[in-house]
Amino acid sequence: MFDFTLEKTTGQARAGTLVLPHGTVRTPAFMPVGTHGAVRGLSMEEVRRTGAQMVLGNTYHLHLRPGEEVIKALGGLQKFTTWNAPMLTDSGGFQVFSLAELRRITEEGVTFKSPVDGSMRMITPEKSMEIQWALGADVAMAFDHVVPGQSDHATALDGLERTLRWLDRCREHHSRITGQAPERQSAQTMWPIIQGGTHDDLRLRSIEGILERGPWTGIAVGGLSVGEPKPVMHRVLETLGPALPTDRPRYLMGVGFPEDLIEAIARGVDLFDCVAATRNGRHGSAWTAAGKVNIRRADLRTSDAPLDADCDCETCRGYSRGYLRHLFVAEEMLGLRLVSIHNVHFLVRLGAQAREHILAGDYDSWSRAWLQRYHSKDS
Amino acid sequence: MFDFTLEKTTGQARAGTLVLPHGTVRTPAFMPVGTHGAVRGLSMEEVRRTGAQMVLGNTYHLHLRPGEEVIKALGGLQKFTTWNAPMLTDSGGFQVFSLAELRRITEEGVTFKSPVDGSMRMITPEKSMEIQWALGADVAMAFDHVVPGQSDHATALDGLERTLRWLDRCREHHSRITGQAPERQSAQTMWPIIQGGTHDDLRLRSIEGILERGPWTGIAVGGLSVGEPKPVMHRVLETLGPALPTDRPRYLMGVGFPEDLIEAIARGVDLFDCVAATRNGRHGSAWTAAGKVNIRRADLRTSDAPLDADCDCETCRGYSRGYLRHLFVAEEMLGLRLVSIHNVHFLVRLGAQAREHILAGDYDSWSRAWLQRYHSKDS
Repeated sequence: MFDFTLEKTTGQARAGTLVLPHGTVRTPAFMPVGTHGAVRGLSMEEVRRTGAQMVLGNTYHLHLRPGEEVIKALGGLQKFTTWNAPMLTDSGGFQVFSLAELRRITEEGVTFKSPVDGSMRMITPEKSMEIQWALGADVAMAFDHVVPGQSDHATALDGLERTLRWLDRCREHHSRITGQAPERQSAQTMWPIIQGGTHDDLRLRSIEGILERGPWTGIAVGGLSVGEPKPVMHRVLETLGPALPTDRPRYLMGVGFPEDLIEAIARGVDLFDCVAATRNGRHGSAWTAAGKVNIRRADLRTSDAPLDADCDCETCRGYSRGYLRHLFVAEEMLGLRLVSIHNVHFLVRLGAQAREHILAGDYDSWSRAWLQRYHSKDS
Repeated sequence: MFDFTLEKTTGQARAGTLVLPHGTVRTPAFMPVGTHGAVRGLSMEEVRRTGAQMVLGNTYHLHLRPGEEVIKALGGLQKFTTWNAPMLTDSGGFQVFSLAELRRITEEGVTFKSPVDGSMRMITPEKSMEIQWALGADVAMAFDHVVPGQSDHATALDGLERTLRWLDRCREHHSRITGQAPERQSAQTMWPIIQGGTHDDLRLRSIEGILERGPWTGIAVGGLSVGEPKPVMHRVLETLGPALPTDRPRYLMGVGFPEDLIEAIARGVDLFDCVAATRNGRHGSAWTAAGKVNIRRADLRTSDAPLDADCDCETCRGYSRGYLRHLFVAEEMLGLRLVSIHNVHFLVRLGAQAREHILAGDYDSWSRAWLQRYHSKDS
């Protein structure tokens, strides 16, 4: 379990296979986000039909509602959501630092006020492991101290050092509650998160600290795509590349947009998640091979063309732009769903296409042509 | 085209077959309502999977948005919505009388203010025929003067007499624009609507006036289930029964709830439509064989039972009550969809079950047992 096989490298781009208790994931791969146990607007059957192999669940949201004990009583997150395939849960760290009100951070953990019932809650590294073990995803994430995106050196250092101390606690507690030594995991593994903001030296210090505490079955990069310029994200990934073990999957958290996938895959990333696909879908903004399309555009009123002529998702196979536009203008829920399905499929397929071209050895030329076409117009 | 074959009568309950340009409908049958060209919250593929044979579209809403010319340009309502099967459009009469603001009623037609763009619009009998012909459903409805549900005798008489005068204009205009004589229709037929409120004598006068103007391929009953007590609706249906031709389908507009279908089928009704299935679904109120279930109920939190153990819809086959409850509490769109699918399937299946028992000759005993179980608890 949790085996990762690197099949082929083209430049820094990697094609691999990750074996998890609930199935196998061919990488590079995009994971749709099921915040509340559903990918917003979609059924899990629709998510499956996009070709998605692995779905992310949010520990923070699921802990607050319905609570991990409910999900455990109903057979765990896979059975509860009907997604009987690989899943990963985040640790709640990003959410308690970015969403929660009235939070108080100590060495012990983070105290915050539940937006659901106003009660005071505390998530510690141990608590995060317990919640995630009850949820039962294939991959749990370490509980990290997330600092704002463009924090200064001292703040970023403080965050990464606490993250390393918390990683020790996560690891110890995860081993204890799962009854699994790190090298003999069978039901759930746990991955550490590299922090360090936009400071290359801190990023390297973070990965060094993580590897000292190894082995790990995978490693995540956190704290990117949080407002920093894109070239900075690219530079951090280039800095990390040589320091990362080649035989472990690399997960870039919270990324991204289509162009982000292309650029990050070129820099050695294997796994992605992001809510942009469904968030943009709900707002009628669709990704296509020729750039973005705002489905509310007046000139689409009588268009019988599909949303994206290059796409084989159920939205593009079944519906006209004119009908999709009408659904958005008339505020029919079906519209949000259909464009979200397309956007999720677009990112999933982009991962699969990247994989094909890595295996074929022409990722570099293919990806440059892809970006050129994608940026050729912005409609 | 538009042939109706009465296969079997058990008491007053009827099993029939209606042949329409886009397909065949076995009756009794419930038609889900696609107000804006979509059954709210569902894809047409999902509607098909409920077993629905025929869908209703709303002329008033589609005229305002996106406009019949857009739908015509995109191939008509069936192609536009991907519902490539029998459809019926209402005339807009009910909506201009019940929903529209600033309406002015004259012998010519009804003037009202569009809630979409504030423009003044007029729907006349001729305009309604033109809109419906552009939409292209199999069955168009006559434009009727709808009076409030419990109008006095004089008001109801006034409404039904205007409805008869408008029926002449509808018939003449529909023949002209479709190029079809009433007895040689091939692409779209048009059905008259019986009015007369809760006054038996006026109901009989209405049907008499309609039959004088015949032949028709079907006849609708309007102005019921608009606030009158249920026994009054049953009495009106019993009054109309003997006066209606047996060889034409009978459509009870805007009805209903499960118990309404059972009672109206017993009184000879063949077709139904109502938004309650999806409206209740969006509010988390589900119909089951054992009565209503409010899916938000706290005791369903960890229930792994299906919504309705007797049901084979995709919601009941795939999801637990506990998950459905969570989706509603977390306000995930998927919840509204799944309970709406169940409710639509519930009414569609009720029509199909009624048909089986009419054909088997035991509708009366079956329907009494069905109602007893349905009313056995109200949760």
